Amino acid sequence: MRHRLKDVAERAGVSVKTVSNVVNGYVHVRPDTRARVEEAIAELNYRPNLSARNLRKGRTGVIALAVPELDIPYFAELARHVVTAAAALGWTVLIDQTGGVREQERVVASGITDHLIDGLIFSPLALTADDLTNLDGTPMVLLGERVDHGPADHVVIDNVAAAREITTHLVGLGRRRIAAIGSQRTPEGASARLRLDGYRSALEEAGLGYDETLVAPAPAWHRADGAAAMRALLTSGVRPDAVFCFNDTLALGALRALHEAGLRVPDDVAVAGFDGIEDGRFSVPTLTTIAPDKERIARLAVELLANRIDGDRTAPARELSAPYRLEPRESTKGR
Amino acid sequence: MRHRLKDVAERAGVSVKTVSNVVNGYVHVRPDTRARVEEAIAELNYRPNLSARNLRKGRTGVIALAVPELDIPYFAELARHVVTAAAALGWTVLIDQTGGVREQERVVASGITDHLIDGLIFSPLALTADDLTNLDGTPMVLLGERVDHGPADHVVIDNVAAAREITTHLVGLGRRRIAAIGSQRTPEGASARLRLDGYRSALEEAGLGYDETLVAPAPAWHRADGAAAMRALLTSGVRPDAVFCFNDTLALGALRALHEAGLRVPDDVAVAGFDGIEDGRFSVPTLTTIAPDKERIARLAVELLANRIDGDRTAPARELSAPYRLEPRESTKGR
Repeated sequence: MRHRLKDVAERAGVSVKTVSNVVNGYVHVRPDTRARVEEAIAELNYRPNLSARNLRKGRTGVIALAVPELDIPYFAELARHVVTAAAALGWTVLIDQTGGVREQERVVASGITDHLIDGLIFSPLALTADDLTNLDGTPMVLLGERVDHGPADHVVIDNVAAAREITTHLVGLGRRRIAAIGSQRTPEGASARLRLDGYRSALEEAGLGYDETLVAPAPAWHRADGAAAMRALLTSGVRPDAVFCFNDTLALGALRALHEAGLRVPDDVAVAGFDGIEDGRFSVPTLTTIAPDKERIARLAVELLANRIDGDRTAPARELSAPYRLEPRESTKGR
Repeated sequence: MRHRLKDVAERAGVSVKTVSNVVNGYVHVRPDTRARVEEAIAELNYRPNLSARNLRKGRTGVIALAVPELDIPYFAELARHVVTAAAALGWTVLIDQTGGVREQERVVASGITDHLIDGLIFSPLALTADDLTNLDGTPMVLLGERVDHGPADHVVIDNVAAAREITTHLVGLGRRRIAAIGSQRTPEGASARLRLDGYRSALEEAGLGYDETLVAPAPAWHRADGAAAMRALLTSGVRPDAVFCFNDTLALGALRALHEAGLRVPDDVAVAGFDGIEDGRFSVPTLTTIAPDKERIARLAVELLANRIDGDRTAPARELSAPYRLEPRESTKGR
């Protein structure tokens, strides 16, 4: 006899909804309730019937999330939210790490996994709109600023306005020689260009003008790149009193370089990042940042994808915007 | 006309091997070479023929990596190495985040994705050996200490010896009240139990004895848990002069709590972690840690899986051990 969700619920003495929450891996179930449900599942040898439901609909029950690098914590945190949002709709998420390499991204976009997945949430770095012209029809939602007038649904945040806001925060603290770390000249640098635009516009608004010698490039956005760029700024003689790093890992590297140079943060140099990653709540000092609402980005992306999979695949592409928040912490405000 | 790898190589003026490296997303190709190859690929509208090769062999060309949490940096870094090692054998890796929830892990292990993937590399937290008795035959390699006499190939590190070594390092610095953070009583806590064993055996070897009041539990191993456990130790009056945290994120949280309490690291309290994550090279102070050779773990796992997929699926399960290294940094040695 094959047991059903109802049988598990009865045996565990909980609602069917609770069993469903456990089976779908939701984290908000109380540990003792979860234990009781898992015990009932084991005793009845219950197996969730997701695959039957999916077979009826001609689906695999799996969507893919393609991101450049999981060891950029922003993408790891985003992935967790996408897994949670997708589980609420009964999907398993498999994550593809592209390395931000255009050819690998083309392979993903052109559907190497087309028979495996029901849809794709894709955060590309290097891809161009041209790469997306020969899609095989797998529903896709894009995240981030690249390919922003492409043929697919899109979830964005306003990078220019966010960068302007955090730069204005530094101006408001009385800083006058505000450096930037993270500029890029490659086609991969869409976020970098937009954040640089916001930085520049805030400086001009404040009557500070734009000084190219205060802008340090970073080939990648890891801690080591941030530390190297900060050291380069310090030895170049431009004497910044603040620095806006285009992501939090760059900023954590910059904090380290300032510490090694014997400079105090924020007294000598204020430091701000971008991404709102967990690390910045625990660094010494804690890190001021722009925190995009990752939970909302994930939920919007999953909902757009679900609409595309279940609904009209030929409707015009939609672009949805997610909010962000400036979070001032010790690295600019002090203790 | 369908172009081949050779045509791309000729047009770009590079070897076939180089084109293959670009197509497989290897990172060590020089940027200008990569650009030339990508240009040739675009001009010829070349599409890699991986899927034809895989169809011939009855394969999808995809393996899955299932890990508990991508926002524990250890798993994100491990994932990057698995992606690289698998790419060398022509596989795409899709990553499944289980949340360490037993039911979700059972779904993965029992092959919800069996028609999607050629094999599975699996780092379980909550799974028991019983959960692995009804495998559907998808080749699988296990990582980590749990289910250690199960029916599958396994890659491990010697957690007991590693924990003993880092505790002995603290003893060697003259510390006498060495606390531990990260103990767990749940079935999920296999790594915790082994690291606690190593800690305890090093203390006894040093004639220091084991003091339960110096051992702080942590329900999860995130920064917030490490900070909370450190605060609890400081307010309990046990006055540790060193602390061994069972992973690096716990240790980064502990560093933060010590900073907030106005204590100096390592002068007042030396701090050591476990995992060798990138964050610990840039924290203030930098973090002493046990660094498992993640690149080797990934390569061994991919090779074991490849042997299982291509070779004898009924051969006895093998267990391979990967090395680790003690990396002393400022949090124990000072500057």
